Amino acid sequence: MAKKTSTSSASVKDRDRATLTKITGLAGDVAKRAFADKEPLITIPTRTKSNTLWDKRRGILQMGDGTAERQLFNLGQAKQFMQTCLHASSIKDLINAEKTLSLRGMFYKGLHTVAGTKEKTFADQDESDGILEDLEVTLGALREELHIFAKKAGTMVGNITIVDSGDEIDCRRMGSGGYAIPSICEPNIIRFKKCEAKFVLHVEKNTVWSRFNEDRFWEKHNCILTEGGGQPSRGVRRLLYRLHHELGLPIYCLLDCDPWGHYIYSVIKQGSISLAFESERLAIPDARFLGIRAKDYQECELSDDVQIALNDNDIKRANEIAQYPWFADKKPWQLEIRKMLANGFKMEVESLITKDISYVTETYVPERLKAKDWLD
Amino acid sequence: MAKKTSTSSASVKDRDRATLTKITGLAGDVAKRAFADKEPLITIPTRTKSNTLWDKRRGILQMGDGTAERQLFNLGQAKQFMQTCLHASSIKDLINAEKTLSLRGMFYKGLHTVAGTKEKTFADQDESDGILEDLEVTLGALREELHIFAKKAGTMVGNITIVDSGDEIDCRRMGSGGYAIPSICEPNIIRFKKCEAKFVLHVEKNTVWSRFNEDRFWEKHNCILTEGGGQPSRGVRRLLYRLHHELGLPIYCLLDCDPWGHYIYSVIKQGSISLAFESERLAIPDARFLGIRAKDYQECELSDDVQIALNDNDIKRANEIAQYPWFADKKPWQLEIRKMLANGFKMEVESLITKDISYVTETYVPERLKAKDWLD
Repeated sequence: MAKKTSTSSASVKDRDRATLTKITGLAGDVAKRAFADKEPLITIPTRTKSNTLWDKRRGILQMGDGTAERQLFNLGQAKQFMQTCLHASSIKDLINAEKTLSLRGMFYKGLHTVAGTKEKTFADQDESDGILEDLEVTLGALREELHIFAKKAGTMVGNITIVDSGDEIDCRRMGSGGYAIPSICEPNIIRFKKCEAKFVLHVEKNTVWSRFNEDRFWEKHNCILTEGGGQPSRGVRRLLYRLHHELGLPIYCLLDCDPWGHYIYSVIKQGSISLAFESERLAIPDARFLGIRAKDYQECELSDDVQIALNDNDIKRANEIAQYPWFADKKPWQLEIRKMLANGFKMEVESLITKDISYVTETYVPERLKAKDWLD
Repeated sequence: MAKKTSTSSASVKDRDRATLTKITGLAGDVAKRAFADKEPLITIPTRTKSNTLWDKRRGILQMGDGTAERQLFNLGQAKQFMQTCLHASSIKDLINAEKTLSLRGMFYKGLHTVAGTKEKTFADQDESDGILEDLEVTLGALREELHIFAKKAGTMVGNITIVDSGDEIDCRRMGSGGYAIPSICEPNIIRFKKCEAKFVLHVEKNTVWSRFNEDRFWEKHNCILTEGGGQPSRGVRRLLYRLHHELGLPIYCLLDCDPWGHYIYSVIKQGSISLAFESERLAIPDARFLGIRAKDYQECELSDDVQIALNDNDIKRANEIAQYPWFADKKPWQLEIRKMLANGFKMEVESLITKDISYVTETYVPERLKAKDWLD
């Protein structure tokens, strides 16, 4: 499967220009209302659970039509109105300067004392982050398109060559360290150049990833190997999304058999309910859960050494996850979670080391892939 | 400064062979005592603060001569004796198989029920980690030489080409993501091939690193740019150590002006008191603290927006750090910490964004380097 996609510099500029147009549109609406002697206001889609809809046919979370207004001449809304305009203006500056900034950086950039008062523009970074999420939904643009990034995490190796900011990177020759996945994996930063890989194996922990890389799993099985350092960052999710949707690669996830592992899979598959607006360009409904499975205790003939007792919180989380709309009507997932609860214990991917250091790379994953034995 | 070092495959094998010899020596001593009708025991250097000495002349922490015995026929020591032998045997297997394993993996590999009892070999990973530290000091070998690794973190770009596990990696062409620094940066994994860089700039956070990389600081100032994701892992520290000692590159640290930033610098410079045995091959006594400095509030004309109040714990930590032996007799460090305490607030590197997004890369760091204005 050697596909090639490219994003020309022109289309990058088109995209930034489109984002800029949205921002100036927002400002223009405010100004228009002011000149028409109407109250300046911004209409913002509501980011609440009640305004989140599960689109079963498309298999993704979507936001409903609920909106809220932010008026300048409303004591309870004036500060947020001002904060929204402030950040929108900063984003415009960033795009024009062709620079990116971290969430923390945006907080500092917008931070000052409101003229004539002792009040700060933002009380803390949480307040700033919330306004940026408002802007994402209002402008219909991902944070990354607004030139804003978060902490990066995650690594990739495998049978693919990418171009990152003009540098060609051969992920087949990245040693033991690997290519560090950036925080912004949009097409204007990352292009896929040459890919022979037939699938992506995504693992939870970088220690497990190192085992797969050391055993050169990606070479033997012609794939791409990624890790997200626990719950994958948006950068990692966006990269997986693009590998799946642009190159047609199936995404297999190797995670722990515990509610946290199930939750990580759930986030890769559908996103989080509180941030439904991201799903459209981050969710991978077809992602597959390869293991660890609750049945593996018997099937792999593991000893009781590997059992980590479920605590009350684990049981509560497992029951919550079982009711997520994308698991609720899937019998195999209901059985999986029930079996884990019946076992009464969790198991980590590393538990397979009790069989052999390389059991996971030489036996477990190849057998499961061959038998098409996964959950989705 | 284009130096070249190389580690031939033969010397790698020599090193592994030396480690193996140490392990079989350990086992041999135990056997010899047993055959001579003496109690089998292992003598282990004591890893306590009281057995840690500050070698002022060499500028590093060292372990004293204190040792403790672990006897097989001593109820209070038998379990640790067995655990030590178990892990020593696993390490021998790893070296022979030319594989590496994570700390978590070592726990699982050694985990089983002691024959004839219901007791597990290890209660938890902490117990396993402690035994591995014992083996490091007993064998006089770094954990990495025992083929054991921890979670990796950290990224590098800059004017250097390295060879990682046989793959040549040009850190000048690593895009926005960078080269992910592996957990084991020993010469058998990483070789330095071609380096024009004149120094290393190490920053605390990967979001700050991204700013420097985006502004191509390493290209403009001919350096290497690293980050450690907070407190740097041993992999990152070992890489910095080798860049400093093998290539002669000065290491400049850009960290927050708070006790945590000072502590990170202290760890890079000297290591942690509780793990003095690592210092010999991890500490960089000549590392330099470039900023953020307590004086920067005035000197960079920052607004009060950037002040983050010191809390009681910060004040306690600051006073503790001031008394570390490598800070205690350094007047500039005493003044620095006193000035921070007098300010009453911390400042993050990101606070410079209030001046301009690229103030830190275009003004702050270049000016400080030019004026040789740092602490060491």
